[in-house]
Amino acid sequence: MSSPSQSPPPRLFTFAAGATGTWTVTLTRPVIGESLPDAAALSVVAAGPAVEVGETAAAWRLRGIVSNERYVERAEKDALVARQEGLGRAACTRAALIPIRKSAAWWALTQDERRDVFEAQSRHIAIGMRYLPAIARRLHHCRDLGPDEPFDFLTWFEFAPEDAGAFEDLVGQLRASPEWRFIDREVDVRLSR
Amino acid sequence: MSSPSQSPPPRLFTFAAGATGTWTVTLTRPVIGESLPDAAALSVVAAGPAVEVGETAAAWRLRGIVSNERYVERAEKDALVARQEGLGRAACTRAALIPIRKSAAWWALTQDERRDVFEAQSRHIAIGMRYLPAIARRLHHCRDLGPDEPFDFLTWFEFAPEDAGAFEDLVGQLRASPEWRFIDREVDVRLSR
Repeated sequence: MSSPSQSPPPRLFTFAAGATGTWTVTLTRPVIGESLPDAAALSVVAAGPAVEVGETAAAWRLRGIVSNERYVERAEKDALVARQEGLGRAACTRAALIPIRKSAAWWALTQDERRDVFEAQSRHIAIGMRYLPAIARRLHHCRDLGPDEPFDFLTWFEFAPEDAGAFEDLVGQLRASPEWRFIDREVDVRLSR
Repeated sequence: MSSPSQSPPPRLFTFAAGATGTWTVTLTRPVIGESLPDAAALSVVAAGPAVEVGETAAAWRLRGIVSNERYVERAEKDALVARQEGLGRAACTRAALIPIRKSAAWWALTQDERRDVFEAQSRHIAIGMRYLPAIARRLHHCRDLGPDEPFDFLTWFEFAPEDAGAFEDLVGQLRASPEWRFIDREVDVRLSR
C-alpha cells in the first residue's frame, strides 16, 4: 500500500520547445497538415496548472494528460505490462514526440467502430507490442483538456540509437494502417540527448 | 453540409452556483462523500477558457467538456439518437446536476472490464434509454481537463414536472447497479425554473 503522504504520479505534462532544453531537436517534419515551428531544443515538464514552465524563448508548447486507456483489453494490458519498461533508461538517448489530431469522422464513430479500426483492422496494440521493451512510450491526451487544443494526442517515445531502425519500422506500419486515414494532422519531432 | 463560417457546437460548459442564476436550486444533497456548498441559484454557461463567467458571489463552479462516447456501440447509438430530444424544451422546468467521481479501481480497469460493469452488469445505457425522450441528458467529462478536478463527470438532466417520479426511478436504478460500487463521490443538485 502507498503511504497517504505519497503523491500520485504526475498526469499533466508540458512539452516546451525553444532555444534551450533537455533534448536537442534533430528534426521537425510535417507528416500530415501543418508543421510546428522549428526549435533547437525541447524540455518535458511534469506540470499542473499552478507550475510555471517558463515563457521565455518558447518556440511552441504543447500540453497533454495521461489518462485511462480507451481500447486496451485485459489480456492485452497484461501482455503489455509484462514486456514494457519505463521512460528514462540511460541507454535511451533518442526520442520522438509525435503530435496527432484525428478527424471529426473518427470522433463520430462509436466505441465498437473505433476499436474495430484501431485493433481489428490496424493492429495498433499488436504492432506496438512487437517493439517492446526496446521502444518505450507514453501517450498523452489533449482533446479533453479544452475545446481549442491543436492536437488530440501527443505520443512520446524513447529508444537507444541502435533501435532507431526498429522505430522507423514501427511508425511506418502505423502510418500505413487504416487508422491513419482518420489522422488529419501529424508532426514528427525527433530528439537526442 | 455546414457552412465554413459556422462554429462547432460548444463543448466546454461551466456550472456556476451563487446568489443569482437562471435556475433556482431546490436541493443540494451529498449522496456519496463530501457535498457542495449550498447556493440559491445556478447558471450553465458555454464557456471556453477566454470567456469570463463572472466571479462575483460564486458559491462554487464546476467545469466539464462534452466528448466522444466511451462505451456506446453503433446499435445503441442509433437507438438513442432515434429517441432522444435536446435540452431547452419549454416544458422542462426541472433539472438535476449530478457530479460524480469514480474510484482509482475503476480507472485501473481495462476497456472491456469497464464496458462489462457499465452495460452487461449495470445496464446503464439500457436504463437511460427507457426514460427517453422524457429525461434529456448531457454528459460532461472533467477528468482530463486537468489533474486536479474534484469530479470525473457532470451529468445534466432536464425534464417536465410530471416526469419527476420517472427521474427518481432512473437515478435509483443506476445507484443500485454494480457500477455505483466504483463511485466514491456523488452530489445531487436539483433545480427548477
